[in-house]
Amino acid sequence: MNETEKVVTAAVLVIGDEILSGRTQDTNTNYIARFLAALGIDLREARVVPDVEEEIVAAVNALRARYDYVFTTGGIGPTHDDITADAIARAFGVGIDYHPEAMALLAARYSNPADFNEMRRRMARIPLGGELIRNSVSAAPGFRIGNVFVMAGVPMIMRAMLEDVAPRLKRGRVVTSVVIETRLPEGRIAAALAQIQSQHRGVAIGSYPFYREDGFGVQLVVRGREEAAVAAAAAAIEQAIRSLGAAPMRVARNGSRASEESS
Amino acid sequence: MNETEKVVTAAVLVIGDEILSGRTQDTNTNYIARFLAALGIDLREARVVPDVEEEIVAAVNALRARYDYVFTTGGIGPTHDDITADAIARAFGVGIDYHPEAMALLAARYSNPADFNEMRRRMARIPLGGELIRNSVSAAPGFRIGNVFVMAGVPMIMRAMLEDVAPRLKRGRVVTSVVIETRLPEGRIAAALAQIQSQHRGVAIGSYPFYREDGFGVQLVVRGREEAAVAAAAAAIEQAIRSLGAAPMRVARNGSRASEESS
Repeated sequence: MNETEKVVTAAVLVIGDEILSGRTQDTNTNYIARFLAALGIDLREARVVPDVEEEIVAAVNALRARYDYVFTTGGIGPTHDDITADAIARAFGVGIDYHPEAMALLAARYSNPADFNEMRRRMARIPLGGELIRNSVSAAPGFRIGNVFVMAGVPMIMRAMLEDVAPRLKRGRVVTSVVIETRLPEGRIAAALAQIQSQHRGVAIGSYPFYREDGFGVQLVVRGREEAAVAAAAAAIEQAIRSLGAAPMRVARNGSRASEESS
Repeated sequence: MNETEKVVTAAVLVIGDEILSGRTQDTNTNYIARFLAALGIDLREARVVPDVEEEIVAAVNALRARYDYVFTTGGIGPTHDDITADAIARAFGVGIDYHPEAMALLAARYSNPADFNEMRRRMARIPLGGELIRNSVSAAPGFRIGNVFVMAGVPMIMRAMLEDVAPRLKRGRVVTSVVIETRLPEGRIAAALAQIQSQHRGVAIGSYPFYREDGFGVQLVVRGREEAAVAAAAAAIEQAIRSLGAAPMRVARNGSRASEESS
């Protein structure tokens, strides 16, 4: 197995009362999932925890021990409810202090030095040993410590931070996926799918029924890192659909960056 | 503390490769969060795990030990990748079998008995001791076992299942929230907010900056179960905004059912 075939794994940790209260629909997890897929990195788990230090510490420590990378979003602003940096420092058992480079970045933003007040300086507090994650949208940085990347919760800023993070990540082989749509009910193709899955162990076959205005049906998704294996399983599924008297249709876009690039 | 003042807690467990691959944007967590908020139940954690039995078992057992209720979504269809029922049985250490009531519900759906094939019968397999969760959209039921509610992943079906679940849940006192918007940058109001939070311990004050086409600003959210305490903290925030020379604006709708009903 060469370098590019090693599987690189990741978890997302969303930090924020606003997600758990239902106030805010999290979209960062989906964006990160696609971003990582395009780099060949497998997102294996995601968690949402409230703005409570012990909860953040416990989740960060559970996830960083288990996956190659952890990406957190939220809780790095200037207000009292922004406690992520302190929680990460505690999770790593290190101190936290004003980071000179972060102080310079933030100070440069305020033409009147008095505007760079104590609360805004909070955004320059970085766990010791952390290195900054810059972004093109705001002066306030995120940071990396160990295998944990700490990013903003505001999607526009989080996305800009990912661009700065990407070059620092090990990459894996990108997953190829093929999506086949048919108007058969899921239950009619299920037995054939189970058999095809048992004969094609190197791929994962997912079955996702849909109910749209123009009718119902199912999307069958074949995913794997070996293109030939994915193609073989996809062909078997198409054959199975035809033998049930229906028409398979390949769907160009299944919503995943990885599949857009590889299918 | 009377019955209605006890805090009832919950977790959501989203089961599905399609969420972690980025193919599908999860919206069920947000819907459940709002649904529970309206019942006075606090969503405290959410997790997403892949279609892997050990992962589902570990997450279910961690969450059900910790919260009053666990709501799972996904993996209860007829195909080989639908492994939630088996995983839940294993998590509870019980057997699994065809549930007579579920068999009857499903059988009634097929005018031709041959259509009620082996794979479709899989959907009637319920862990021993489980009771059904019906829904108005499809014949296939979810189930409750212990404090775990197992629901479909298709949002339309999941939502219908929640309606069947609601009468079985203990309710708590609904959280009241007030949302105040101002065009001040977050960093200017941060010190005042920290002081107000320290003086109003019975409420949680969240600060959420926004960047819209018509400009930037911040939404300040006060949440708590005591209406008077929420109102007092909100008034203090409005006063602080005015004393900084800006205009506070109450936002009627913050996207939460609970707040719609109570504010």
